Amino acid sequence: MADFDTGLHRREANFAALTPIDYLVRTSEVYPHKLAIVHGNIRRTWGETYDRCRRLAVALRQYGVKRNTTVAVMLPNTPEMVEAHFGVPMSGGVLCSLNIRLDTEALIFCLQHGEAKVLLIDSEFLHHLPAIREAMPALYVIQVNDVLGPIVPPSKHSDTDYESLLQSARNLYDWQMPDDEWDAIALNYTSGTTGDPKGVVYHHRGAAINAVSNIIEWNMERHPVYLWTLPMFHCNGWCFPWTVAARAGVNVCLRKFDPKVCFDLIRQEKVTHYCAAPIVHSGLANAPDEVKAGVNHVVKGQIAGAAPPEAVLASMEELGFEITHVYGLTEVYGPSAVCVEHEDWKTLSLQERAAKKARQGVRNMLQAGMMVMNPNTMDIVENDGQDMGEIMFRGNIVMKGYLKNPEATDAAFAGGWFHTGDLAVLDADSYAQIRDRSKDIIISGGENISSIELEDVLYKHTSVLACAIVAVPDEKWGEVPVAFIELKPGARWTEEEVVEYCRANMARFKVPKRVIFQELPKTATSKVQKYELRKKAKEAVAQG
Amino acid sequence: MADFDTGLHRREANFAALTPIDYLVRTSEVYPHKLAIVHGNIRRTWGETYDRCRRLAVALRQYGVKRNTTVAVMLPNTPEMVEAHFGVPMSGGVLCSLNIRLDTEALIFCLQHGEAKVLLIDSEFLHHLPAIREAMPALYVIQVNDVLGPIVPPSKHSDTDYESLLQSARNLYDWQMPDDEWDAIALNYTSGTTGDPKGVVYHHRGAAINAVSNIIEWNMERHPVYLWTLPMFHCNGWCFPWTVAARAGVNVCLRKFDPKVCFDLIRQEKVTHYCAAPIVHSGLANAPDEVKAGVNHVVKGQIAGAAPPEAVLASMEELGFEITHVYGLTEVYGPSAVCVEHEDWKTLSLQERAAKKARQGVRNMLQAGMMVMNPNTMDIVENDGQDMGEIMFRGNIVMKGYLKNPEATDAAFAGGWFHTGDLAVLDADSYAQIRDRSKDIIISGGENISSIELEDVLYKHTSVLACAIVAVPDEKWGEVPVAFIELKPGARWTEEEVVEYCRANMARFKVPKRVIFQELPKTATSKVQKYELRKKAKEAVAQG
Repeated sequence: MADFDTGLHRREANFAALTPIDYLVRTSEVYPHKLAIVHGNIRRTWGETYDRCRRLAVALRQYGVKRNTTVAVMLPNTPEMVEAHFGVPMSGGVLCSLNIRLDTEALIFCLQHGEAKVLLIDSEFLHHLPAIREAMPALYVIQVNDVLGPIVPPSKHSDTDYESLLQSARNLYDWQMPDDEWDAIALNYTSGTTGDPKGVVYHHRGAAINAVSNIIEWNMERHPVYLWTLPMFHCNGWCFPWTVAARAGVNVCLRKFDPKVCFDLIRQEKVTHYCAAPIVHSGLANAPDEVKAGVNHVVKGQIAGAAPPEAVLASMEELGFEITHVYGLTEVYGPSAVCVEHEDWKTLSLQERAAKKARQGVRNMLQAGMMVMNPNTMDIVENDGQDMGEIMFRGNIVMKGYLKNPEATDAAFAGGWFHTGDLAVLDADSYAQIRDRSKDIIISGGENISSIELEDVLYKHTSVLACAIVAVPDEKWGEVPVAFIELKPGARWTEEEVVEYCRANMARFKVPKRVIFQELPKTATSKVQKYELRKKAKEAVAQG
Repeated sequence: MADFDTGLHRREANFAALTPIDYLVRTSEVYPHKLAIVHGNIRRTWGETYDRCRRLAVALRQYGVKRNTTVAVMLPNTPEMVEAHFGVPMSGGVLCSLNIRLDTEALIFCLQHGEAKVLLIDSEFLHHLPAIREAMPALYVIQVNDVLGPIVPPSKHSDTDYESLLQSARNLYDWQMPDDEWDAIALNYTSGTTGDPKGVVYHHRGAAINAVSNIIEWNMERHPVYLWTLPMFHCNGWCFPWTVAARAGVNVCLRKFDPKVCFDLIRQEKVTHYCAAPIVHSGLANAPDEVKAGVNHVVKGQIAGAAPPEAVLASMEELGFEITHVYGLTEVYGPSAVCVEHEDWKTLSLQERAAKKARQGVRNMLQAGMMVMNPNTMDIVENDGQDMGEIMFRGNIVMKGYLKNPEATDAAFAGGWFHTGDLAVLDADSYAQIRDRSKDIIISGGENISSIELEDVLYKHTSVLACAIVAVPDEKWGEVPVAFIELKPGARWTEEEVVEYCRANMARFKVPKRVIFQELPKTATSKVQKYELRKKAKEAVAQG
């Protein structure tokens, strides 16, 4: 055998740490005058954006930020949030994007657990500052006065403002690429429906690879116009701040979701791509016709968190939108599975197509593995659409681990795979379809009932805006399903009619035992708060 | 600072060696029934192709191939050549793709230097076998009887044939992913215009990244139909066997370039992409109109090795072809720079556009660096279109090094950059443009003359099919340029007319001192053999 190793080691010339920072550098080299950011009256190029990111990095380093320093941000989808996705890692620091919907206590938990040294905070959220400063007096607080945010004076609890910070940067070359592609780039706290939030750590390698994976899986050509309907604090916006830079696209910023504002931006800026939770898709699909009218180009949307309901899919297709269903969670950098569509699906009926697209699908090409397995034996389930197991991932789009939580990390990675907690079956074509979150499954009279399956049936009814099925303890059956339904404005549907509809559309034992009409409570990341509904359902059933 | 390292190490769940093998695996999972290979009457799916690649890997392992075993192939662009790009690395072996145009002596040099244990050889090249077997009696020789190749009986110098080998594979799971992404995947010998060929070693990481880079830089959507006009033995077909698998595309195989066959395939198979040397592009552009007629879809071509001449560009654009100019060399896995086109170039005249596109451009997004520098001081040249330096690359799309040649490797990587040997300037937009190969520059009367610049002028003349300018020693001037011109069929142009044309189109001192009309000798990789021409020019000038 020839010696393919000696003298053929890694060196500066033939090895570079993979990092999404380089995507910004390269785009600013090749497209310095191309539009990067749109926000109100702000229109900045990639050259300007690179300059501002360098200033942020340098100023943070002047303050003392270096490798592994946590820099927290509490920002809506503003230009500063895009800049933080580059400027913070370019300082060597780790970006901790806080969920802006959290309460003060939860925010302080994340800041303290993550040992944040710096906080960038939008002027809308200054009311949290007194308590935060009291809990963390050494925190360096930078107030961000977004042009579209509330106009307020400097808080006495902030140390400086963002623009002054950028101005303070001296040597614009004093920023750094990561020494090692395994270095942390971001820290994202899970929403934590039970127990304390966990700090999910991302590394440069994974962020760089997932940013490219987004391009690959979405067939994304150069110069997309990307509308920021998805919060960037959610898995770093599924890594799209880095993807948009890689493709020299436009970030159309958005402080807050509003269907009319979105459609205005879609028409004005010729938006080509967006990602969003189901609730946002419903909001777009159900907007008044006059709001939706006049979009004359193709818009591509990604939906995750739940399958696209048939009615939403139909509305979006009618508008000329192309919707891709993706699947993932914080621990895999956002979606790392995709319901890849096949050419022959185009000939299917809407109903058949929606059924195919409702599935979570297959691994991204750049994710090494996705399997549905029995978590005890690690045996792969049969691809018969029946045999249930847990979805597991392995590969380069899996987190570095949970911060300061070796037990949780080891448990999550048991058997060499990341355990998602989502229960699924495999279809004949080996596409995975979630039947339930482990904790959401309803076991009634020894039969497993998938709450998702029931929700799908309800979503097919034209009166339903949103719905959720939860389990309630029952002496006779063990558990029984209870339905919560949020009706569309003006819709009328009685409990009796719902039960009748369910009986006609599902096995008898699956029919909800109670139906409660109300607006659904949601987590900060737009997931329905089932644990709240479970409490309420229990009370309602107890009251008879 | 929070501890972002302890307990957050690489494990099976969150780290996988980057390798293009996985692209085949994933495509065979998601698109098992989709067309992968077209060749004569052969139409094979990705499922079938994966099966054959596994068989090849397993059979090679049964024979004893393992990590770092060199498996050489001498194959045209056939299905077996595509399969070897997966089957060999899946056995753990290193694929050494021999240039099929080499003479027996050179072939034996490569086989011996690379310590090949196995050779797959197409039945067209069996005449080399007696000498090869004599030189390497232990070599295991597998005869490949391509359906479109010459029909011959089994050679007494071969040990088995390819289909029998595949049949012999037993446990189809006994293949392997690389242990380390830095492991060698391929060995490619440079054409070696001076001295012995050097063995350029590629690793899995670089191959995986460049395969993705091809998608990114070419905006390549899913399911391309890729015509194999570029030899796969040339930088592993610029890594496109792996790219086509990653995109679940179709490999339209081609034993030999022929314009009519190519246009027939373009129409029949709806070819969307191809790569080729300038000579092949000229062949397509200059084909008779009746051969070119009837292509009603967009075809994208990549050209490397020389800028696309204006006339070729014009012909291709007229046909609806979109040509991208890329730049690289064996040491950087084929092209790793691209002349990225800007939207505003579309409004330029053909001449202006051709001038823009004639440049080598900028680094690929996934290549970490490309610079034009003074090789002694490593200072970057001014971006003034005048200051000349050497093009250098650094990053993940740079070879592992030269096999068993630490001196050459160290020299190539001096100063932390790979030295290409190509001399270039940087334009105001920081696009590089080659002025000359270091050894091709002509220094006449103390003035530098760029042979490429002179060739560009000659190419603009309608009579010129191909041309080359070389330096000849001259007592008075040091060196003087001599022109070799291959005229188009039927064209008439005298030496006197050429000189007159040159005087009208370039500085006086640059005008060639002699003009010789003849067919240009080319290397096996279609590069003009300037060293042959230099010898001839010297003789011609000596004779007066």
